[in-house]
Amino acid sequence: MSHGRHHNFSAGPAVLPEHIIERLAEQLPNLNGTGLGLMEMSHRSAAFSEIVNSAKTRIRKILSIPEDYHVLLLQGGASLQFCMLPQNLLQGGVADYLDTGTWSTKAFKEALLFGSAREAWSGREIGYRSVPTDEDWTESEDAIYTHYTSNNTISGTQYHTPPKGAHLVCDMSSDIASRPIDGSRFDVIYAGAQKNLGPSGVTVIAISPWAIERSNPKLPSMLRYRLHVEKESLFNTPNTLGIWVLNEVLGWIETQGLEQVAATNERKSSKLYDLLDSSEFWKPHAKKTSRSQMNVTWRLGDTDMEKQLVAEAEEAGFSGIKGHRSVGGLRASIYNACPESSVDSLLEFLREFERTQG
Amino acid sequence: MSHGRHHNFSAGPAVLPEHIIERLAEQLPNLNGTGLGLMEMSHRSAAFSEIVNSAKTRIRKILSIPEDYHVLLLQGGASLQFCMLPQNLLQGGVADYLDTGTWSTKAFKEALLFGSAREAWSGREIGYRSVPTDEDWTESEDAIYTHYTSNNTISGTQYHTPPKGAHLVCDMSSDIASRPIDGSRFDVIYAGAQKNLGPSGVTVIAISPWAIERSNPKLPSMLRYRLHVEKESLFNTPNTLGIWVLNEVLGWIETQGLEQVAATNERKSSKLYDLLDSSEFWKPHAKKTSRSQMNVTWRLGDTDMEKQLVAEAEEAGFSGIKGHRSVGGLRASIYNACPESSVDSLLEFLREFERTQG
Repeated sequence: MSHGRHHNFSAGPAVLPEHIIERLAEQLPNLNGTGLGLMEMSHRSAAFSEIVNSAKTRIRKILSIPEDYHVLLLQGGASLQFCMLPQNLLQGGVADYLDTGTWSTKAFKEALLFGSAREAWSGREIGYRSVPTDEDWTESEDAIYTHYTSNNTISGTQYHTPPKGAHLVCDMSSDIASRPIDGSRFDVIYAGAQKNLGPSGVTVIAISPWAIERSNPKLPSMLRYRLHVEKESLFNTPNTLGIWVLNEVLGWIETQGLEQVAATNERKSSKLYDLLDSSEFWKPHAKKTSRSQMNVTWRLGDTDMEKQLVAEAEEAGFSGIKGHRSVGGLRASIYNACPESSVDSLLEFLREFERTQG
Repeated sequence: MSHGRHHNFSAGPAVLPEHIIERLAEQLPNLNGTGLGLMEMSHRSAAFSEIVNSAKTRIRKILSIPEDYHVLLLQGGASLQFCMLPQNLLQGGVADYLDTGTWSTKAFKEALLFGSAREAWSGREIGYRSVPTDEDWTESEDAIYTHYTSNNTISGTQYHTPPKGAHLVCDMSSDIASRPIDGSRFDVIYAGAQKNLGPSGVTVIAISPWAIERSNPKLPSMLRYRLHVEKESLFNTPNTLGIWVLNEVLGWIETQGLEQVAATNERKSSKLYDLLDSSEFWKPHAKKTSRSQMNVTWRLGDTDMEKQLVAEAEEAGFSGIKGHRSVGGLRASIYNACPESSVDSLLEFLREFERTQG
């Protein structure tokens, strides 16, 4: 790889397409010949408005977001949405939350502050090895919305289709734009950009007219969805550099086509799972029916050998292979921008490790 | 200038030191030989922890922040602090707000949601041409804190010393680190980075033990000062690139010394005010006693001629000279990173404009 870059399997902030990093470096001192640096111009300038509008249009197209929905680009990550969402929509009412790990749990806890959030299902007892099927849980009759986390970075699980629920709200931070979705199936989609869409510090939100209609108009300005809709995400100064990168990443996805991106993700993850299923040496963590195409998690029989693998991988130029501290073991985060060649190199390394240690 | 860069007088996001832009471009693909891009590594990595810790240490040193205070690096800009602050500290109590323009007004309105915020003084009737002296207003006996905006970007006014008030809270977004301050005089300082300290998307906060003690422990996680203190600003993924730039800008200020930075700012602004005072052709907006060293605002007698000046300036490579839409006229934002040579070139341009049009 150029620039002496390692194979980067970081769970986030994650690897970005190298050509976008190079283009950013070029544009930093002088954006498109405007005479102003990319980070150094008014967010209300014509040049920046064009970038924001382009990013929003691409999000609509890529996620098949209906025309009457709103697209917002805010700050604070999914964590701020964990509270903004119930604060706007719940207002004392009931919502169903599906607990598939750390991030779902955090979202649920914030919702408890604003209404009767109900844990409709939890994978806690099964080590979060799978996500629920629609048969596994019952909807609350009075649920205002159903909240779920489409991909779980820590345990390495993913919904392959959205769950039931009349009004779906999805934290899509770790698999947004990795495969085609029907945007109209959701009332709120939110995602921190730092896994599949760009650098940290930008949150992408798609929100339905129903959700805007329901949202609380009496909150502080910065927490009001309505206000951000009215101000077209420019109520205050946004993360301008982050939005520039987001727009470039979306353009790169658009150029390939989302079907193509999804096919590559399917291929990359299958190669890894095929290896993990090939012998008893590897112990994949997630149940087959819930496996994530974004975060592949596994263990070895022996924690010392896991440590050895991480150390040897690091030495060989594979970064970010260590599993999350709450699960242990190994994890390869292979979001959209992780090149297939990095996955191929990792496979070769893992096969060799198994040959010598297995 | 290199890179075909214009003289950039943007009110924010504002010009940054060119050597930092160049260093950023170099480090983007591979930070300090780690093999990982600056935007593409975990915020919990050793490499990034070092950057966060360095930035915090420099903020303490530059702003003379007492050791028992906490320094936070969050997202959402000053606008999010407008609500976080009263939500944490006011809790139904009284606070004095000094109104010196648009941003103070916004802060005040958010405070009204959480207690009896009192407009202790307002410059509304005098077109916000000056900030109050301590004789101009009386403190509420039961004020929990006194809130003010140290520099006003739109009208071009600035406090030359902090106002009275037992517990001072200051929105220092547009003049932070432009001159020495006594950090111990404040209980909360907050500032969006995008004027004097870096790109947009990072908020710098210094907060006293008193304020943390008072702060509401029952708020949603992301809005709780206490939680961000406990988690050392890494409760969730921060704007990592923004914090890298912040740290570099702070290093640049540290190297010069804040006294030196202040002397340069004094010199840059005096040159402009001297011209504006030199003939009736120019009509400086702010009262002499309240003039800002960061944003110099003025009018001509004739709005058409103002438009002509903006157009000719743009043509000659001076960007961002147009006054804010709410005041009109002209504005030169000359934050720390605006080179003195840009001010000198602008002076030459303005003298020539006066010679031909005056």
